[in-house]
Amino acid sequence: MNLKIAVLPGDGIGPEVTLQAKKALYAIGVVYDHEFVFEDALMGAVAIDKTGNPLPEQTLNLCLNTDAVLFGAIGDPKYDNNPSAKVRPEQGLLKLRKELGLFANIRPIKPYKSLLDSSPLKREIIEGADFTIFRELTGGVYFGEKKLNDAGTIASDLCEYSEEEITRITHLAFKAAQNRRKKVTMVDKANVLETSRLWRKVVKKVSENYPDVLLDFLFVDNAAMQIILNPKQFDVILTENLFGDILSDEASVITGSIGLLASASLGNKNALFEPIHGSYPQAKGKNTANPIASILSAAMLLEHFGLNKEAKKVYEAVEKAIEYNVVTVDLKADSKFGTNEVGDFISNVI
Amino acid sequence: MNLKIAVLPGDGIGPEVTLQAKKALYAIGVVYDHEFVFEDALMGAVAIDKTGNPLPEQTLNLCLNTDAVLFGAIGDPKYDNNPSAKVRPEQGLLKLRKELGLFANIRPIKPYKSLLDSSPLKREIIEGADFTIFRELTGGVYFGEKKLNDAGTIASDLCEYSEEEITRITHLAFKAAQNRRKKVTMVDKANVLETSRLWRKVVKKVSENYPDVLLDFLFVDNAAMQIILNPKQFDVILTENLFGDILSDEASVITGSIGLLASASLGNKNALFEPIHGSYPQAKGKNTANPIASILSAAMLLEHFGLNKEAKKVYEAVEKAIEYNVVTVDLKADSKFGTNEVGDFISNVI
Ligand SMILES: CC(C)[C@H](C(=O)O)[C@@H](O)C(=O)O
Ligand SMILES: CC(C)[C@H](C(=O)O)[C@@H](O)C(=O)O
Repeated sequence: MNLKIAVLPGDGIGPEVTLQAKKALYAIGVVYDHEFVFEDALMGAVAIDKTGNPLPEQTLNLCLNTDAVLFGAIGDPKYDNNPSAKVRPEQGLLKLRKELGLFANIRPIKPYKSLLDSSPLKREIIEGADFTIFRELTGGVYFGEKKLNDAGTIASDLCEYSEEEITRITHLAFKAAQNRRKKVTMVDKANVLETSRLWRKVVKKVSENYPDVLLDFLFVDNAAMQIILNPKQFDVILTENLFGDILSDEASVITGSIGLLASASLGNKNALFEPIHGSYPQAKGKNTANPIASILSAAMLLEHFGLNKEAKKVYEAVEKAIEYNVVTVDLKADSKFGTNEVGDFISNVI
Repeated sequence: MNLKIAVLPGDGIGPEVTLQAKKALYAIGVVYDHEFVFEDALMGAVAIDKTGNPLPEQTLNLCLNTDAVLFGAIGDPKYDNNPSAKVRPEQGLLKLRKELGLFANIRPIKPYKSLLDSSPLKREIIEGADFTIFRELTGGVYFGEKKLNDAGTIASDLCEYSEEEITRITHLAFKAAQNRRKKVTMVDKANVLETSRLWRKVVKKVSENYPDVLLDFLFVDNAAMQIILNPKQFDVILTENLFGDILSDEASVITGSIGLLASASLGNKNALFEPIHGSYPQAKGKNTANPIASILSAAMLLEHFGLNKEAKKVYEAVEKAIEYNVVTVDLKADSKFGTNEVGDFISNVI
């Protein structure tokens, strides 16, 4: 297979982890005789520094005209504490999601057997947990109108959803559930929010097309509790943008490290793959960041193109690294291995 | 002391747990020679059933003219899955919070020594954790304009905050921190939301009045992770309404049971005390619900009126119940004790 892949390393640890994902894909290409052509482009705080724009036109065009995007991370503390900054790195990511129409963000959560003891949760709570979060990614409060009055004393964000936006991701979630344990849990705050009530109505309607899938509902406050109390109850979690952001980061603790979790963002035409961790600026350039989430994003990319054998090879290589303790310090405090060494090990095993 | 207390038992398990709190307050009154006069009133789904209104005028007037409100729980599944219901139990609680001006909801999180092993989290993670969440309670997306277009296909909720709303709760949070470990962690999503950026700006400004208190910031997705990964890092968490709702329920897992957590909702003139658990309709009338959260709400009520000795007595009685295993099934699966028995034990110890 021939794939053109745009690589946006982004900020913080983005570049160093993305490099390891490229190495893994390169190794897969060699072993299975595929041609993966990578083209790097600027995005995020680095893009602002160089061009004034967190998502330069050129980067966007590249992404629109490639088969897939491999993305690193975004964000820089110099913008976080500057409420009056007009341009922010995150705008680049949000714009990219919107322009590529990446309405579904898919985040699988499943602890590794050999890491069952590195979670803050007790082993018996997490052993056997295996669920996937379907987070709506191009709607809700992220994209609604934002206002600040002239005096700078009143601010607002609008959370808006349409039936159509809810319908399309709901179909994806139910289809995924059909290939899993056939259960969808919709998470919302329907006792307070109008948008949640629309979600409930639409999801119920769509669910009638999937009589083999069980649908249940949880309020988001309760869901935040249940994910920790009993993660095994979940199969597919379906939720809106902001709730998905919070719950998927929360759920990452189950696996012992956010450095292990990958995600796929899908639209009708485009696809982007990224680790769920952020730019982690404190670790930038130190060769300590865990590259596994980024490498697993590459595996999700392979799966997306039907390269299941190849994806499996990546998963196995990652498991081997974990089994042999060739991991970064987040997983083994006294580890001698850095980002690069873990990446090398994994691509060598491939 | 003479206190007039409005009691709103509400829905589900509300009535049975609130009864135990009343028993505890009654016992305190006898021992310490205070006169607590209770007046019960309708609110929630029961109020809708009887009057068509989740917060009848009479209930609101009573609450406006008492020293404090003791509240049970609200919510009934028959409304949750009915997106077109015009009247909902939760509206009663939201209206009450708004009308009483209860802008600050305070939720202390601290595990009991003898329950350190009943949390889903490992003992070493939670031992020593002790923090309080200050949740803004009368603003944000809970109270912003809600819209649904005529076709019922597009819905929206507006999240709005003013400088003044942020300022008043921020002062409370910093004052509380001065009496604790002198650290405030502001939780927001300033990389995406305009309201969060206003929060950051205002909180920074207010913090200048409290040079002895350390202020730091976390994005809400990261906070949802940190609460589980390392709850000991927190002293006072300050956040907006919806984030506070999610994070405080999440944080309840630290203590092993949401049935142990109380909250105080304060305004300039009024005060309301409630368990953070909901109406838990499955357990209604079964004498299995944990009354401790409600009893601890009564203790927070006592503290609010400066009755610290009395509050301490309640805390000690609760600790004794836990120590002697006179607890409900959420804390000890094979317990023979029900809601009533635990309540009796605690008021007898008082
Ligand atoms: C960087 C930020 C805008 C982003 C989000 O909130 O969507 C991130 O937290 C994520 O989850 O991908
Ligand atoms: C019942 C509901 C409206 C309420 C809320 O979301 O505020 C509850 O969850 C709470 O936290 O007190």
